[in-house]
Amino acid sequence: MLTRIDHIGIACFDLDKTVEFYRATYGFEVFHSEVNEEQGVREAMLKINGTSDGGASYLQLLEPTREDSAVGKWLKKNGEGVHHIAFGTADVDTDSEAIRDKGVRVLYEEPRTGSMGSRITFLHPKDCHGVLTELVTAAPSSPTEH
Amino acid sequence: MLTRIDHIGIACFDLDKTVEFYRATYGFEVFHSEVNEEQGVREAMLKINGTSDGGASYLQLLEPTREDSAVGKWLKKNGEGVHHIAFGTADVDTDSEAIRDKGVRVLYEEPRTGSMGSRITFLHPKDCHGVLTELVTAAPSSPTEH
Repeated sequence: MLTRIDHIGIACFDLDKTVEFYRATYGFEVFHSEVNEEQGVREAMLKINGTSDGGASYLQLLEPTREDSAVGKWLKKNGEGVHHIAFGTADVDTDSEAIRDKGVRVLYEEPRTGSMGSRITFLHPKDCHGVLTELVTAAPSSPTEH
Repeated sequence: MLTRIDHIGIACFDLDKTVEFYRATYGFEVFHSEVNEEQGVREAMLKINGTSDGGASYLQLLEPTREDSAVGKWLKKNGEGVHHIAFGTADVDTDSEAIRDKGVRVLYEEPRTGSMGSRITFLHPKDCHGVLTELVTAAPSSPTEH
């Protein structure tokens, strides 16, 4: 069961400049940052609010580490902007299988590793009215450091 | 001060079909629906979770009521997908003025009426790394009916 908006994934050309925009304009601070080599991104998570399921909602700022990554190709085609949205669930395996059974294409055979040790998968945007949609199960204890 | 992700605005060609997709795929239900003639949209709000500031996060599904509305033009150019993101604040007037003073273009001189009696304004996407960004102050008592 999907119980929160976990994050909004935003693709950018320059992570440091984009982080600075969000800090200077809105006061949002970096909660966590990492490089995900599998996804080909350098990312910063800005925590915006806590959620009623005990989790949190973030902005996820994404800079590609290579041009041929999914985000790199997307940026080249679309320019900066919202790349995907993500819903949080306690059980990404069960939920993604149930959604696959409804005929929505799930992009990974098994969930992979996402931000802060989470487990993630993606749904095909053409099956979701144009929205690249991620499902996330947070790690049992999420990090609290940068 | 911006204290939550208030909603993600998603443009679609057929509101009823898109509402049905979100219900059948994820179990999300319509919390509220309305027509905003000023914005030129028919919309459905799907409540996803409560937030730590006492508000909530929604998906806002938007179908244009006329081709020359902002959402109508956007859809024609981009197809279905994420149209904007919105942050919640207790005081959209003060926050939008402070952001304007930082050199970000605020699209309305004064906030206008948004979903469920809220007061809203938008920031120019070219000043926000490609993201059309809305600021929202919820009505004192938001409706609980459809």
